[in-house]
Amino acid sequence: MLERYGHGGDLATAEERFGLPADGFLDYSSNMNPLGPPAAVREILARYMDEISKYPDPVSRKLRAKLAKKHGIDQSAILVGNGAAELIDLAVRALRPSRMAIAAPCFGEYGDAAKKAGVPVYEGLLRSDADFELGEQWVTEALEASGADLYLLGSPNNPTGALVEYRHIQRLLDSGATVVLDEAFLDFLPDDEHRSLAAEASTNGRLFVLRSMTKFYAIPGIRLGYIVGHPEALEAMRRLQVPWSVNSLAQAIGAAVLEDEAFAGETWAWLQSESEFLRAELRKLGFRDYPGAVNYLLVRLPDDAPFTSTELQQEMGRRGALIRDASLFTGLDHRYIRLAIKLRAQNARLIGVLREAIASLGGSGT
Amino acid sequence: MLERYGHGGDLATAEERFGLPADGFLDYSSNMNPLGPPAAVREILARYMDEISKYPDPVSRKLRAKLAKKHGIDQSAILVGNGAAELIDLAVRALRPSRMAIAAPCFGEYGDAAKKAGVPVYEGLLRSDADFELGEQWVTEALEASGADLYLLGSPNNPTGALVEYRHIQRLLDSGATVVLDEAFLDFLPDDEHRSLAAEASTNGRLFVLRSMTKFYAIPGIRLGYIVGHPEALEAMRRLQVPWSVNSLAQAIGAAVLEDEAFAGETWAWLQSESEFLRAELRKLGFRDYPGAVNYLLVRLPDDAPFTSTELQQEMGRRGALIRDASLFTGLDHRYIRLAIKLRAQNARLIGVLREAIASLGGSGT
Repeated sequence: MLERYGHGGDLATAEERFGLPADGFLDYSSNMNPLGPPAAVREILARYMDEISKYPDPVSRKLRAKLAKKHGIDQSAILVGNGAAELIDLAVRALRPSRMAIAAPCFGEYGDAAKKAGVPVYEGLLRSDADFELGEQWVTEALEASGADLYLLGSPNNPTGALVEYRHIQRLLDSGATVVLDEAFLDFLPDDEHRSLAAEASTNGRLFVLRSMTKFYAIPGIRLGYIVGHPEALEAMRRLQVPWSVNSLAQAIGAAVLEDEAFAGETWAWLQSESEFLRAELRKLGFRDYPGAVNYLLVRLPDDAPFTSTELQQEMGRRGALIRDASLFTGLDHRYIRLAIKLRAQNARLIGVLREAIASLGGSGT
Repeated sequence: MLERYGHGGDLATAEERFGLPADGFLDYSSNMNPLGPPAAVREILARYMDEISKYPDPVSRKLRAKLAKKHGIDQSAILVGNGAAELIDLAVRALRPSRMAIAAPCFGEYGDAAKKAGVPVYEGLLRSDADFELGEQWVTEALEASGADLYLLGSPNNPTGALVEYRHIQRLLDSGATVVLDEAFLDFLPDDEHRSLAAEASTNGRLFVLRSMTKFYAIPGIRLGYIVGHPEALEAMRRLQVPWSVNSLAQAIGAAVLEDEAFAGETWAWLQSESEFLRAELRKLGFRDYPGAVNYLLVRLPDDAPFTSTELQQEMGRRGALIRDASLFTGLDHRYIRLAIKLRAQNARLIGVLREAIASLGGSGT
């Protein structure tokens, strides 16, 4: 299993496991925008030698000003973090829920953050036959059975790609619970600004919106995310945050890439076309995909496949292509994988490797 | 007060406060090696555009291998962090002391980390008339009165520059307590490798050594530190750490600068000569300095000075020079400041600004 530390994109482990150099893998196990990073990043790097000797701004003033403008909210409603992972951890620790509910399958850090904080977790399963969408029934059951005062939900959800409809969030809030909505991948949707609940979160003391900047702008190496919430409600998270948690390069890059409006348009155009291409090719191989508009696909192996997701990952890794074995996600099993969507040449290569691996594993691969 | 967020080096606050551009200050309020960053940092930055789109190695394998070699210890005895600040926080949270003891004045994060974790703190005062050295008497009193099962001590201590002798650490360990020794500034001493307790910490379950790489290599913007301890004792900290907490640029820079042996030699030579120069000049102005061999000086205002440290900071800030108002440190008052040591031209300029500020505040400044 490649997810030795719980996540995809672990090239150092891949190198150890498959004996190929970390640089050479076709990495479909992490969901980065293949058009990125934007050109502005290069300029920031060129100037950074003069900045690295200074402490980061402890409260990310310049970046928060730009984010506030983007969302049309007050700067004080934004807390910047060392990647969304830090903010998930801070949110759970600061909100101190008595019980937390998540919708499985989902990003593993939700449950891990609760476990670290000693918070019991209710895992409400999403149903494969409902395309893993969080619907009316899920909410009803969760409200009845979870006993949770905090809901941590992804929209779009990872690894399923499904969005959570606003009316479901509203019902959870109406019950008196707090909701942290993880919109880490929402910027991949062209109607992101219309859909985001950031503005509502900025004034509602029980709704928080998590955002990542590392996927859309393809900068996971440097770590950058933020959370939007009522300024007073954010205060407890701010108090727990380690000083200078957000390095100055991440702050400078974050502020610069927000200016690049063309990058977003190009990303949306690329994604629509490549998502269609990859889905069509996967179907030809007998895989089943699920609805969604993000830059990754949850995929079910062909029903007659004589191999597991773990075996497929292993077989592809040997061939230099990394995929996410989705069996680690609660609510999924060894029949699921998760794939990033990349550029046409890479996607074509992925399909080629997939075909080879399937043949080698005794599948039909037609 | 410039230390709005508790620390020096806050150029963004200085800009707000004094109306001068953040880039233009002569910053004596944070303790960076003025010879840095080493040239290798520029090379790493030039190549980083190809790395930023990949996740950081979650367990900093390459950097840990180099650090293990440097200290002659096993890699599993090292945990890398997002600056020493993250490791202070993790250490206190993971070790879960019932009470923690610190020696005041000291780095403010020790007490802050305890407060965040809800741990009561015993602050044993260091005495000005003993040059703020932690001696036999301090240990005896702490063992009798503190009730602490965790001691968090700086050696060299910040802001005093004093080292803690090994026999005192030994006595604390012999009492059954755990000791976290913060050696963040120890690399500024030429006999660092001889003095460091890292090797002992790597096998002793109750001794931990904290190290920073940001001061000596002048890279605070990117955040990098590590803690050395028995591998099993480190496990609890590792479990609490946020995934990908250490960005990939920090990991790459850390591994590269450790190769630059000439940098250390040049730093030690510079420091010896400039420390002597700055001390002599400060004495001419009536200031009192304290023993120590690090790259910063705790300084007491002239006895007849008709101004406080806060007034002096304000007066110097207007003139573009930032100093640390040491009155924020428990155990010090408005008669103390802390100054970094920089290159000759800067040190001479500092003395000039100091003389002007003193004259303007009605001091004699002879």
